[in-house]
Amino acid sequence: MTEIVDWVAVDWGTSNLRAWGIGQDGAVAFEKTSPKGMGKLTREEFPGALAELLEGVEPASAGAPLDVLICGMAGARQGWLEAPYLEAPTDLRGLLDGAVRPAMPGGRIAPAILPGVCQKAGADNVMRGEETQLLGLAALTPGFSGIVCMPGTHSKWAQLSGTRIEHFSTAMTGEIFEVLRTHSVLRHSLNGDLDGPGRAEGFAAGAAMGLEHPAQLLGTLFQVRASSLLSGRQPDWCAGYLSGLLIGTEIGSNRHLIGNTAVPLIGSPALCAHYAQVLAMIGARGEPKDATEIVLAGLKAARSFAV
Amino acid sequence: MTEIVDWVAVDWGTSNLRAWGIGQDGAVAFEKTSPKGMGKLTREEFPGALAELLEGVEPASAGAPLDVLICGMAGARQGWLEAPYLEAPTDLRGLLDGAVRPAMPGGRIAPAILPGVCQKAGADNVMRGEETQLLGLAALTPGFSGIVCMPGTHSKWAQLSGTRIEHFSTAMTGEIFEVLRTHSVLRHSLNGDLDGPGRAEGFAAGAAMGLEHPAQLLGTLFQVRASSLLSGRQPDWCAGYLSGLLIGTEIGSNRHLIGNTAVPLIGSPALCAHYAQVLAMIGARGEPKDATEIVLAGLKAARSFAV
Repeated sequence: MTEIVDWVAVDWGTSNLRAWGIGQDGAVAFEKTSPKGMGKLTREEFPGALAELLEGVEPASAGAPLDVLICGMAGARQGWLEAPYLEAPTDLRGLLDGAVRPAMPGGRIAPAILPGVCQKAGADNVMRGEETQLLGLAALTPGFSGIVCMPGTHSKWAQLSGTRIEHFSTAMTGEIFEVLRTHSVLRHSLNGDLDGPGRAEGFAAGAAMGLEHPAQLLGTLFQVRASSLLSGRQPDWCAGYLSGLLIGTEIGSNRHLIGNTAVPLIGSPALCAHYAQVLAMIGARGEPKDATEIVLAGLKAARSFAV
Repeated sequence: MTEIVDWVAVDWGTSNLRAWGIGQDGAVAFEKTSPKGMGKLTREEFPGALAELLEGVEPASAGAPLDVLICGMAGARQGWLEAPYLEAPTDLRGLLDGAVRPAMPGGRIAPAILPGVCQKAGADNVMRGEETQLLGLAALTPGFSGIVCMPGTHSKWAQLSGTRIEHFSTAMTGEIFEVLRTHSVLRHSLNGDLDGPGRAEGFAAGAAMGLEHPAQLLGTLFQVRASSLLSGRQPDWCAGYLSGLLIGTEIGSNRHLIGNTAVPLIGSPALCAHYAQVLAMIGARGEPKDATEIVLAGLKAARSFAV
């Protein structure tokens, strides 16, 4: 079957590849997904993965190549073609100007990969993919100014003023949870059913500890182990405690950035709900966003600001 | 060859087993070591490992069994025989009273395993082995009162008043370094010669960051990765930075406990030197101790306080 679209929006992350065909009315005509994330491909395999996903998709203007706008890890150094970072502070309306255009055999498809954003001057940091979501948030929420939290393996906290990103940081919260759960002495306390009824109670206790003592993380982490040895805490409670402790520490350490406006949360619904719960514990309000809607809005906005 | 001794002091840790024969004059007559640490043995293998190590060792009092005093992980739940924890605050002169005496086939050897120390009431914590070192420090430094730092995989910080342990905490510093180096995204920045000339510079930079921002650890950790991506930092610099950042964060988070007296450091000489360097950065003084001398003094002291 042939699909006729105006252009194709693509989010090419480490684990997955997602594409949306955008019709001439601006609406989503189709969504296609593939497990061929950047992490699973060699440089040479990117063109084939994209061509395969977009088989049967044709551009509305006959004769012209299919316009494909890509954000995410495909533009990393170890990805398809490196799209050099824009340096923060910067106006995200400049994303398309920084895009790179990898060669595509056959010329049927014309891909452009958006850059990530970096930060230097003693606060070295990088993002790739989140900048497009931030532009999407700015497009969907005109006039928004404040801190944005993007929970995940590497959570981002970004200070946004309209379409400008002023400053950002990365917290390794999700990854620390995973490596400790899998490889540290804490694994002995997290061996069993982690989703039992004790998880919520452990989460609340860990979050309270993290919020109150964000500087004590190296020490409070060990309490996961000690609690199971001394107080007979079960794996579900310990998993909740570890998760709450890390999220509480992350939010506690960013407390000075949280003002009176609600904090937009961009990430998986389950994780955003956890962050909203912990934000509520300090009287702040988290506002979970639909991450797909946000990234699509970002790709659309990036394209509309073409020079 | 037969060795005649008054008793045998044993430090049975997770990785190694060490024994010292103590003569009737109180001097060390021999030292024997074995790689048969607790972590490598099933419960049934402990008696054989000890008998093998002490083959040819005879007690000075003929006919009596050989008196062997053991500290460390042999007394853990997953060790030889669990020696229940004393609960802090407690006087460490009570260690021998809390010892357990596992059965030993043949009756030639009479082992006693000292307990560890735990802490409850919302500050759950455990130590096993370090309590004997703390008693040794107290014995070698009469009248000492203050904070003691024991750097390692799980660093201990203990408030000591003479032979009393008032309070303690555990920082997972060494283990976090290892799991991040081996299993996290940071491994990409730590892949190469980690002992090059950049290590010392990276260590100092990381330590300064950790001391200044102990609450920002989840964020500052990611700077290891960003520094290699953006500033071309080499693996040796990154390894130094990660190590310095973790030790700086640990010391920074315990800053309120550090007074004007020197902080005794009990651990490996290389690690203690690093901790002393970071302590000096905040105007404090670390005093590395000989860990073998300390544990021997602790076992002797524990034995001398037998009821």
